[in-house]
Amino acid sequence: MAETTAQTRPGGRSAKVRAAVHRAVEELVAEGPAEALTIPVVAARAGVHATTVYRRWGSVAQLLNDVATSRFSGDVVVPDTGSLAGDLERWVGDVATDLADPDVLALMRATIGSGPGGGSACTGDRHAQLGAIIEREQARGGEVPSVGTAVDTLLGPLYYRAIFSAEPASGEWARGLVATLLAAIQCRVPPGGPTSR
Amino acid sequence: MAETTAQTRPGGRSAKVRAAVHRAVEELVAEGPAEALTIPVVAARAGVHATTVYRRWGSVAQLLNDVATSRFSGDVVVPDTGSLAGDLERWVGDVATDLADPDVLALMRATIGSGPGGGSACTGDRHAQLGAIIEREQARGGEVPSVGTAVDTLLGPLYYRAIFSAEPASGEWARGLVATLLAAIQCRVPPGGPTSR
Repeated sequence: MAETTAQTRPGGRSAKVRAAVHRAVEELVAEGPAEALTIPVVAARAGVHATTVYRRWGSVAQLLNDVATSRFSGDVVVPDTGSLAGDLERWVGDVATDLADPDVLALMRATIGSGPGGGSACTGDRHAQLGAIIEREQARGGEVPSVGTAVDTLLGPLYYRAIFSAEPASGEWARGLVATLLAAIQCRVPPGGPTSR
Repeated sequence: MAETTAQTRPGGRSAKVRAAVHRAVEELVAEGPAEALTIPVVAARAGVHATTVYRRWGSVAQLLNDVATSRFSGDVVVPDTGSLAGDLERWVGDVATDLADPDVLALMRATIGSGPGGGSACTGDRHAQLGAIIEREQARGGEVPSVGTAVDTLLGPLYYRAIFSAEPASGEWARGLVATLLAAIQCRVPPGGPTSR
């Protein structure tokens, strides 16, 4: 009896429900506008009771945050090419490729639209990855930018282009952002900024 | 008879309906999660027939795009301080102040969440303003960045921080972005980027 087996292994059952609900959210978001996304609709698509979804996630916003956190964690690998320039170029290329996927953009838009915490659910892992790349270069003894400057120079334009602009983020353009960041290390802005004209 | 007067001045009546519907959307978005936003709900709040809203805007996405375009146009004035550094510093400060308003963020999130065109409805006027600032400096005979570089260096981090990060965008941090942009003009990235290590 499959049902009994499932009930005696709550971890396995719970993981199956989670996977079915996550898949349902990703499908529904990819199919249409976020206004149609409600917990009963998600539950019906996932083949589970709406009360199960309410009990576990509480709201569409929390559910979307969970799906986005899971979808955008570990999907891009932190490279180890032996140099900061190499690592960053590989990594921004992978992020740009991810952001060119219409389903990724649809999930990001829906998660942002669901409430204040949505944006950071999409990018929390990117910050961690950028921090790991910079830390590795420090361990190599190289000169590094601060994580904050790297976020501003790399993630800022990458996500701005994905969400706020219709321009596609090409790999070449993304590698240009890395060049800008590395040039800024070699040519530090003097305190107080450059001389005003 | 006010009704007759209104009917003989369709422009005036139409403008009133538009203002009431826009105000209703801004209020509803500021109050709660975007999932509650439907055309009947907006119409009820605005005191107009739902069919009027359907006929004029077609969908919640189009309505939000219209409200965002209108809200984010002309709200920040293009300054004329006499220098590129001065103009940009004043302008990014005003943009950062705007982006610190919770109602602005709620409208942006809802508009982004409504579909693919939402993001550019929020920032179209910012591109135009940045272009105008750069054009004025060119007319003064000064050296200028490309609009694309300025978008990447200024709008990228400003909007990334507003939507994807929990960190507030202080005026000091925003002026630092201007310093970075101006330093990059004085210290051009060599073609092909800086020397890789």
